[in-house]
Amino acid sequence: MTERQTERVFVANRGEIALRIIEACDRLGYDTVLGVSAADRSTLGARRAGRTVVLGGPRPGESYLNMNAVLQAAISTGCTAIHPGYGFLSENPEFARQCAENGIVFVGPSPEALEALGDKLTARRLAESLGVPVSAGGTAGTAAEVRELAGRIGYPVLVKAAHGGGGRGMKLVTGPEELQDAWQLASAEAESAFGNGTVFLERFVTDAKHVEVQVLGDRHGNRVHLGERECSVQYRYQKVVEEAPCAALPEATRTLLHTSALKIADALDYVGLGTVEFLYDVTRDELAFLEVNPRLQVEHPVTEAVTGVDLVREQLLAALGHPMTLRQADIRLTGHAIECRITAQDPDNSLAPSPGTVARWRPPAAGGARLDSHIYEGYRFPPFYDALMGKQIVWAPDRTAAVERMDSVLEQFEIGGVTTSLPLLRRILAHQDYRSNVVTTHWLNDYLNDYLGNDVEQEVH
Amino acid sequence: MTERQTERVFVANRGEIALRIIEACDRLGYDTVLGVSAADRSTLGARRAGRTVVLGGPRPGESYLNMNAVLQAAISTGCTAIHPGYGFLSENPEFARQCAENGIVFVGPSPEALEALGDKLTARRLAESLGVPVSAGGTAGTAAEVRELAGRIGYPVLVKAAHGGGGRGMKLVTGPEELQDAWQLASAEAESAFGNGTVFLERFVTDAKHVEVQVLGDRHGNRVHLGERECSVQYRYQKVVEEAPCAALPEATRTLLHTSALKIADALDYVGLGTVEFLYDVTRDELAFLEVNPRLQVEHPVTEAVTGVDLVREQLLAALGHPMTLRQADIRLTGHAIECRITAQDPDNSLAPSPGTVARWRPPAAGGARLDSHIYEGYRFPPFYDALMGKQIVWAPDRTAAVERMDSVLEQFEIGGVTTSLPLLRRILAHQDYRSNVVTTHWLNDYLNDYLGNDVEQEVH
Repeated sequence: MTERQTERVFVANRGEIALRIIEACDRLGYDTVLGVSAADRSTLGARRAGRTVVLGGPRPGESYLNMNAVLQAAISTGCTAIHPGYGFLSENPEFARQCAENGIVFVGPSPEALEALGDKLTARRLAESLGVPVSAGGTAGTAAEVRELAGRIGYPVLVKAAHGGGGRGMKLVTGPEELQDAWQLASAEAESAFGNGTVFLERFVTDAKHVEVQVLGDRHGNRVHLGERECSVQYRYQKVVEEAPCAALPEATRTLLHTSALKIADALDYVGLGTVEFLYDVTRDELAFLEVNPRLQVEHPVTEAVTGVDLVREQLLAALGHPMTLRQADIRLTGHAIECRITAQDPDNSLAPSPGTVARWRPPAAGGARLDSHIYEGYRFPPFYDALMGKQIVWAPDRTAAVERMDSVLEQFEIGGVTTSLPLLRRILAHQDYRSNVVTTHWLNDYLNDYLGNDVEQEVH
Repeated sequence: MTERQTERVFVANRGEIALRIIEACDRLGYDTVLGVSAADRSTLGARRAGRTVVLGGPRPGESYLNMNAVLQAAISTGCTAIHPGYGFLSENPEFARQCAENGIVFVGPSPEALEALGDKLTARRLAESLGVPVSAGGTAGTAAEVRELAGRIGYPVLVKAAHGGGGRGMKLVTGPEELQDAWQLASAEAESAFGNGTVFLERFVTDAKHVEVQVLGDRHGNRVHLGERECSVQYRYQKVVEEAPCAALPEATRTLLHTSALKIADALDYVGLGTVEFLYDVTRDELAFLEVNPRLQVEHPVTEAVTGVDLVREQLLAALGHPMTLRQADIRLTGHAIECRITAQDPDNSLAPSPGTVARWRPPAAGGARLDSHIYEGYRFPPFYDALMGKQIVWAPDRTAAVERMDSVLEQFEIGGVTTSLPLLRRILAHQDYRSNVVTTHWLNDYLNDYLGNDVEQEVH
């Protein structure tokens, strides 16, 4: 360790994940510089970082998404690396390229990998070429060919934008009469939103669990997976409850899932942390590749809880060129972990954001359970960012015990001043469907539909 | 909450507990100022505090024990309160008085309570007067009266200094022929070490568990207990492994223990956190009051883990005059928690300190288990302070599961560059005596005696 120069990491993010990255840097003995927006000058992150630099105005485009501002701030403070966290610039190949051009390590995969993975059609073709299971689909040229392809796939079918994400640029088509309009509309929307109108077709899996595999690679050709997570409890593509492992997977399917994820990572010479997402059709016992998220995920703590591996630490070490000391055989998964995202959203009002001042913030210390959060009493939500307040994580030897534990921790959690998702989280945990682990990706939509007593549009995965 | 002025807390301590206090202040929205010695300028605490002030030289007397330096630093930085942590100035009535005289809140009980509790004989008499079980003992005037008292108590008997602590000022007397010399020697030593030669006699309990009750009071007459901890695994009065609850207590004895602790706290109008310590003779099912520690304890996290209460937060709120919202009926104890103190001490060399540079520091993220630590890779141990590197805490539904969990977490813990107590901790956890919970306070001494293959003097509790 003595020969190592002191690293200085620029943290280009905010909220709980900025704290998480600063903590990992601290433990590694790395210096930190946090870039903040004008709205985030007095956050806990600003307090904890070695140094804080204001990037620009409160709007993301003025600060956290402003490539030039971030790069200039990192260069002028002598940083050797930039950690982009999740969201913002974390999946931007152009930003990764500019980092490299300025001699700064981008904590993430190569610009080429980011580019390949940012295009869902390319990623899908890569998976197919590797023999990884994908759902029926593809693309076609003429309207007649598209119709022919849709007929072969079978309705309902999805029209998906290659560069979309989070549900944007996606259309559900229930019959041939809707196909052409949907195709043209999706393509036009994608062109306008993502600057690329490429769309493709995919079978709509109506009843599936969301499963994803955590992979990790270094610059020396070492690569491991750290098991899977299940994130089926989601609302409008936002994950709400995540767990590790996915208790519903038969062992053979789990093995196929892990080897499939590693195949994709290997093909990309993947460096750092990545998540390979799949849908799992429980009835058919079938996996279908979805996409790769080339970054640290919000839900990474559940994997940390069952593996004992500090993922952010490993990610930093890998990005900085250290050879991995982890070997696949060393990674043992024990027990079951659950994460609940506590957000300032109103469950009685379609989970609309409910910003305000957090007058009371009393997380329980029960069970020494992990809470990743940037909230303090008196915190005011700036109206510019997401509504995440914190991630409560629990671990127990098995899923039943973990659900009980989470329920008992959430029961003791006291928050005042803002409306939060806590009551909804407790209802989810108490629900028979969740307890018996039959939840699929549209479950929470359906549930909220009943719960709210009003219409929530049918969502696609 | 809106009417609250912004509090600013001066943290007059170092290491893991300084981080713990800063974290609690952060979550409450309080500003922090950390006073550091010249040796602690670049600690994680210095990085995380809102502001850092150098108190003086590296020796404790020049900095952390320097009342004037601490007070001046707190005053000049506009602090409204001083948190003394544990050790250093935390039990010093004179310091508490000077804080009050300067209009700064001392986060601890009143100077009067500190004075009463600093005198073990006074504390013992208070306990006796309240009907709290104490072991046979007392004090006497003439040599003949002392001999007569010792005879009534029965040998072996302890001569204890009223102002001693941590084993200092204590003599074990096995027969009447040793009594007078021991009495005079103890008194002279106590006079020279503590400025007060008062000594008294107490029955020597040969085989007992150490149990202690966490109490909490506010300035409005509310007072609760938060259950007990067991800390029998100790070496030379240093606790090594702590847990909550004490699994060996019959329910009736546990109730007596809790009510006894509350009686003492009530009699002192106790404000803040305090720990009432007892010995528990398992064979006789008898409790004997030992002393009250009027401060935050190193082992507080195990109580947090089983109660869900953030003790440092409650301590700060109570000191600052907020009425407690906790009621005894709300405090439910669930499961079992264990804390292991990881120290830079050499188990093969009588746990001698082994300072150096921590070249590798890889705590496992397993189970989201709590680790309170100020260590980072590259940390150099200053030779002026204790050897504590961190406190690993685990929780599980029962003691057996908690022991397994701790063992699995410690197994994955990697530390390089310094010799640590990790191997010893794992041997303790694996030992049949520990597993079957028959360990008493002299157990670790005996064990190390065998383990080291050399003589370790017989210790008294």
